[in-house]
Order: sequence, then C-alpha cells, then structure tokens
Amino acid sequence: MHISELDTPAILIDLDKMEHNLRSVADYAREHNLRLRPHTKTHKIPALARRQIELGAVGFTVAKVSEAEVMIEAAPEDLLVAYPVIGEQKLARLMRVARKTRVTVALDSQVAAEMLSAAASRSGLTIHVLAEFDVGLGRVGVQPGHEIVELARAIDALPGLRLDGVAFYPGHIKALDEEGFQALDRLSATVEQVVEDFDHAGLCLEIVSGGSTPTLFHSHRVKGMNEIRPGTYIFYDRNCVACGACQLEDCAASILVTVVSTARQNGMMIDGGSKTFFSDRLVTGEDAYFGHLIEAPGARFFRMNEEHGYVDLAAAARRFAIGDRVRVIPNHICVAMNLHEQVYGVRGEEVVETWRVAARGKLQ
Amino acid sequence: MHISELDTPAILIDLDKMEHNLRSVADYAREHNLRLRPHTKTHKIPALARRQIELGAVGFTVAKVSEAEVMIEAAPEDLLVAYPVIGEQKLARLMRVARKTRVTVALDSQVAAEMLSAAASRSGLTIHVLAEFDVGLGRVGVQPGHEIVELARAIDALPGLRLDGVAFYPGHIKALDEEGFQALDRLSATVEQVVEDFDHAGLCLEIVSGGSTPTLFHSHRVKGMNEIRPGTYIFYDRNCVACGACQLEDCAASILVTVVSTARQNGMMIDGGSKTFFSDRLVTGEDAYFGHLIEAPGARFFRMNEEHGYVDLAAAARRFAIGDRVRVIPNHICVAMNLHEQVYGVRGEEVVETWRVAARGKLQ
Repeated sequence: MHISELDTPAILIDLDKMEHNLRSVADYAREHNLRLRPHTKTHKIPALARRQIELGAVGFTVAKVSEAEVMIEAAPEDLLVAYPVIGEQKLARLMRVARKTRVTVALDSQVAAEMLSAAASRSGLTIHVLAEFDVGLGRVGVQPGHEIVELARAIDALPGLRLDGVAFYPGHIKALDEEGFQALDRLSATVEQVVEDFDHAGLCLEIVSGGSTPTLFHSHRVKGMNEIRPGTYIFYDRNCVACGACQLEDCAASILVTVVSTARQNGMMIDGGSKTFFSDRLVTGEDAYFGHLIEAPGARFFRMNEEHGYVDLAAAARRFAIGDRVRVIPNHICVAMNLHEQVYGVRGEEVVETWRVAARGKLQ
Repeated sequence: MHISELDTPAILIDLDKMEHNLRSVADYAREHNLRLRPHTKTHKIPALARRQIELGAVGFTVAKVSEAEVMIEAAPEDLLVAYPVIGEQKLARLMRVARKTRVTVALDSQVAAEMLSAAASRSGLTIHVLAEFDVGLGRVGVQPGHEIVELARAIDALPGLRLDGVAFYPGHIKALDEEGFQALDRLSATVEQVVEDFDHAGLCLEIVSGGSTPTLFHSHRVKGMNEIRPGTYIFYDRNCVACGACQLEDCAASILVTVVSTARQNGMMIDGGSKTFFSDRLVTGEDAYFGHLIEAPGARFFRMNEEHGYVDLAAAARRFAIGDRVRVIPNHICVAMNLHEQVYGVRGEEVVETWRVAARGKLQ
C-alpha cells in the first residue's frame, strides 16, 4: 500500500531509520558493557520490543503493571516495572506476570517493599528489587547516603524479595551543554559514592541502573552505572534533537496530516491537534512550536486545539491547498503514540507494516 | 462495588452532578428556544449521548467521521460533523453514516463543499451543510460579509447538498469578564449582520449555530443565534470554573489516584501524570496547576511527567501516606476522557455504572 492510501492523521515509522537507531544504541551498550533494558513506553508495541531483544536487550522496562501484561507477549527474560507498585489489585496482577517471567520492581519506600514482599510471599514467588534514589529530579527516590543504604537493607531483609541493586533517573539533565556536562560529572560522583557505600554495607549491587535520553551516548562516563533504560531512541523526536541526542534526520516517526482549511491568511489548518500530537512543548530552549513540517521548512506549527493544528506559513517557502498532506515530526513521540490505535511502518513511500499500539492507554 | 475496590487511576463520574448539569442546560435551551446539539467529544460515550437526546437534544455534534461512526449507536436523528471532511476515505465513510441518519457538515471552503457534493451525488444522498464563518478565533471559517455569503451561494448551487444555515465558534472569548461581555456584544452584532446579509441574498438560514462554554448561559444574548453546541457542560472542569461557567461543586468528573511516594519533602507523588490527566494548563488566568485535589485543599499539583503527578503539600492542611487515595478535578476533562479506556459512574461512594469510552482515540 502507498502512503497516499492511508487516512489521516496517521503515525508513520520510517523502518530504515528505526533499525539504524536500534542498532546504534545496541552497539553502544555492547561496546561499553552496559546492560540495555529499553523502556517500552515509547513504542508500546510487542513486535518492536521483540526486535529490541533480538538486538541484545536483556529485558524491558515498563512503568505500569498493565504495560507489563502487554509486554509479556514479547517473551522477555525480565521485566522491570520502574514504578512503585502500590495496592492489592496491582500486586495481584504483578504476581500473575511474575509466574511467566522474572519481574523486577524499582521502588523508593519501605512501605512499598513490605507490600511487595507480602504479595510475593503469599504467592511463593521471588521478586527482584532495585532501590531507587534521587539524583536531582526530585520525583521519586530516597536521598543517596544513609537513606538509600537503609532502604536497601530493609529490602534485603524482607522475604520474597531479592535485592539486585539500585536505580535512578537523571531527568534533571535536560541537555548536554556545559551545565549538563557538569551535572553529569556530579551524577557520576554521586553514583560512585553509592557504590562505595553499598560495598561497605555488604549489600548486593549487581545492577546500577540509570540513564536518560540527553545523556544516552555519555552513559559510560557515569562510573559504576552498568545498565541503561532508554526509550525514545527507537524513534527519537524534536525533544531529542533539542537536547543533542540525535539529528533531525534520525527521527523515525512522523505524523501524516491533511490540510483542511486555508481560510486563515498566510496560514493553514491541519487535521491534527492536541488529540493527535499531545500538547507537550519542547523541554529545552525557546522554541514554542509543536512540530517540524518536513515538507515546509519555515512553517510554524504554533497552536493546537484538540482537532486543529494552526500552521503559520508567513516564513515558509511554499503554500498548500486543501487536501494536501504533510508529515510532521512531533515534539514528544511517546505521548503521541499513546493517542493512536495503530501506526504504520514504511519503507520510502510504501506502507509495509501495520502495528496495533497494544500498550496504549495502559494506566494502571 | 465501592470506590475503594477500583484500581487507580480511574475517572469517576458523579451521576447526581452530571444529571443536574445535563438538565440545567437542557432547561436553559428550552427556555430560550435554542436548539441543543451537544458536542459528544467531552464524554465520547453513546449511553451518555442517549441521555442528552432524552433530555431534548436535537442531535449531536462530533468533530471526526470516526466519532460519527461511534455515535450512530445512540440513534440520533441528526449528526453534525463540525469539521471539514477532506479526502476520499473519510467521505466514503461519511456516506455510510448518512445512510443511517441525517448528516450535517460544517465547512469553510468551496473545495470542501465540492468534494462533499461529489460524494453525496455519487451516493444519491443529500448532506446538510452549515457554512462556517470566523468570529475572531482565527481557526477555521471565512470572514463574515461577502465571503460567507459567497460560500453559502456556492453550497446552495451544488447538487447533493442542502444549505441549512451557518456555524461559528467564539473560542476567542475565554471568560465573561468585562472584556468578555464586550466581545459577546460584538459577536451579537456580527451575527445579526450575517442574518441580514443572508436575508438580502435570499439564502436559507434555518440554523444559526454557535456557542462556547464561557458564553453558554448567555447564548440568548447573541441575536439571531438559534442553536448551541456545548460539550463540557455534562461534566464541567477547572477550565469551566475559571471562565465562570460553573462552580467547583458542579464538576461531576474527578480522577481517583493513589499516593505512590512521599520521598519528596513536603510533597507526594500520585500515580497520574500527563498520560492520565493530559498536560493542558488552564486557558485563563495565572493558575499553573494541573488539578484540584478534593481531599487536600491547598495542595498544589504543580508538575507532571507521563506517569507521575508532583504534588506540593507545603500549604495543605494534611499529609498523606503511601497507598492513600485522592480525587482530582482536572483542568480539561475532554482530553482526559480521551486517555481512559473506561470510566465509572458513582452515586456517593458506590460505583453503579462502568462505561467504555467508545469514541476515545477516534482521530480520523
């Protein structure tokens, strides 16, 4: 099927670019002896998770139990739920997943550890655990120093749990400019100290799991870290370009839209707004636009309603007619994927794959 | 089932409040002889659309053909697609809908009218049309004056189409403060002039369709307008409170979430972020928060990642423990509904209805 036969809006995945992205990160991880446990929240598709395994991923990362239930389809040897699992319903479902594959949970409180221990003990299962510490984002995670050591000791003492090590997420490093590199150096020092503290305390530290998109190809600079959990690298997006993780040409996902109105002077409306793209602006910098129009450099995608994308063409090289189609590289692909029932894999102008976004909308 | 048996995050609909909201707008419309053609994008649920019909709605409004395909389940006598239908796939699907019920399309270009005319003629159907004009939002719609008259003339001359009148959307009026009332007066004058122009031109103007949430209960002040298409009024949300359309107590939809971490000082993390709430900030004013925590007045829901909600409790009257649940009134309920597979109707603490959000994610 040719792209022109697709109805819009539709997410297109350039398979050549995607495969290049998958391979380059798999090669980087192998070169630096980093375990690669990709976050599947970006694609939400078991078939793509399977490709990550084939390229050497040791397992996957998910945020929610409902995502784990979907990703079991890809037959991973390990599933990391990088989110505290709180509440009896979720714990019961997690135990069912743990009967099928090894499950690891990252958590940041003794309360969460005790709930997990009770559920695992009742089921006669062993759940692997990473103790999470905060490295500056101020989201989840106890403080490095005695807090993380105490949390790890508590986990280690609980039945049904196996302490594998620690996890952290340096989401406060938004770009690798000079300030970003300094933050990366501080992060490395913090992690090294945690490694030393665990060693003194005689605690298991097989896995030191971290990484973020901006720091992706500098992960080897964080001393002691031996695992990364990147997600966005499979497709990349404008945020990744802005933070320096990739070039615009590496972006494998674009959203095909149709021009539906040209009544606005020097502008046009496209049939994708926040219900198609999500409303995230770029994480870094001054750029206030919602995407890059491949066919119209200079166009400014400056506003959205749910179904309407407002494009200003004053500085664009060309004009468009009602019915014309353009492809837009979104700011944040993970949240856009979550809005689409299915997406299309393309080679050039040919649609060669249709994937259902199976883990879309999995909130629980 | 008691609310405590639901897993989180979950959207709860307070049915008493919802029914009050539905009735008050139906009564208002009846009192002022306004046709009520509710936009179903807010709830996306055929069973709720059916209740709107039972209370006197003349039909529904949808934005996309795929939404029309879902809402046909509610057996409306009329479906208004308030969006230009561009492209052969969509037109073919629209004709299938039009075999089941009367279809009206709002459009703003001769090109869109010609495409629709060709599809209707081929199918031997008549599609009703509203010519859309812009009243200040600068989104879709030709200019009032000769542009809207010319567009209506073109529609009127095309086979397979029946010109019913005009449509507009005063989305530029964000709140009914002094400035808002002035804008409403200007709007009324514009609409009156269009009515006069159509009269002089001998063009049909059975329907003059407009309205927006902030202006909802002042619709009768727009002279000549005889139809409103409100959506959010079924649930309301923080945006509606901010723009003066309702009180906080009228908000029928809240999102039940669980506290998953209290590691952050004076704060807590809840298990709903932008994947649960969407990332829309308030349309008006300075308020930069993402929702109102019913159980914690003073709490500030100040940041989101996809799965994490950051709540600052420095100014809140109470603290929470991991596993506690709170209900959050979202900023924008339409976009939140689009993220949930199902929602729950409650009376007090009892869950009495479970609805699938059938028109969720209908982009095309």
